[in-house]
Amino acid sequence: MKPYGLGVKAIINDSHGQILLLRRSAQSKRFAGTWEFPGGKVDAGEAFDAALLREVAEETGLTIALDKVAGATHYEMPEIRLAVLFIEARLEAGEVRLSDEHDDYCWVPPGELAHLDMSEQLHEFIVDYLQRGGRQGV
Amino acid sequence: MKPYGLGVKAIINDSHGQILLLRRSAQSKRFAGTWEFPGGKVDAGEAFDAALLREVAEETGLTIALDKVAGATHYEMPEIRLAVLFIEARLEAGEVRLSDEHDDYCWVPPGELAHLDMSEQLHEFIVDYLQRGGRQGV
Repeated sequence: MKPYGLGVKAIINDSHGQILLLRRSAQSKRFAGTWEFPGGKVDAGEAFDAALLREVAEETGLTIALDKVAGATHYEMPEIRLAVLFIEARLEAGEVRLSDEHDDYCWVPPGELAHLDMSEQLHEFIVDYLQRGGRQGV
Repeated sequence: MKPYGLGVKAIINDSHGQILLLRRSAQSKRFAGTWEFPGGKVDAGEAFDAALLREVAEETGLTIALDKVAGATHYEMPEIRLAVLFIEARLEAGEVRLSDEHDDYCWVPPGELAHLDMSEQLHEFIVDYLQRGGRQGV
């Protein structure tokens, strides 16, 4: 049976209600050039909320506060499978400073999230999330 | 900031496509007498899939195989908040043997899940899950 990992992603809202998306760099093994939320895999033994704050700091330089769960999706890969948890968050401090993992970013209104080039699973998640009403607040 | 815990729940299908629900015992601190999926909180440092297999074995005596992620919901409680991950699963072996945490169980067709008395968050999750098409298979 394939190992089952846990990933966490932040749907970060700024003070204008816009949401941060990052574009995966051209060197990415998978989904190069597509857009995604900041976040990553939870290390063994790590708490998921600490992992998310760490990944967001590493990938964007931002300080955020976590709000409610937005949902979860499944990723099936050759060697592992991943449960990915999406958490809503508020921008608290910082300006975006990207790592090598990404080469562009943008703050978009919720209604435009699904228009960017992204993996099919992420697109389906976003469409369902917006249909459910999107951000539920704190 | 409230601690953010992780819970895991199994949507267990038998060979007839029916899904297992358990009724919380009368001594339960919260939601006594309401129906829920088997599962519980992930201990600090524990992998979520191992936690789920453990909780299901403790609460039902069943052996299951985990399939795809079904989604996630948020629970806000006075001292903590919880992200709860729902994972689809197949019954592999065993007959249901309840622990003290529950006092009844039933195997229901998907279309009847939402008819049982349950917490509002769980009801909303189930309605959305079924609208999205329910079980996605292995």
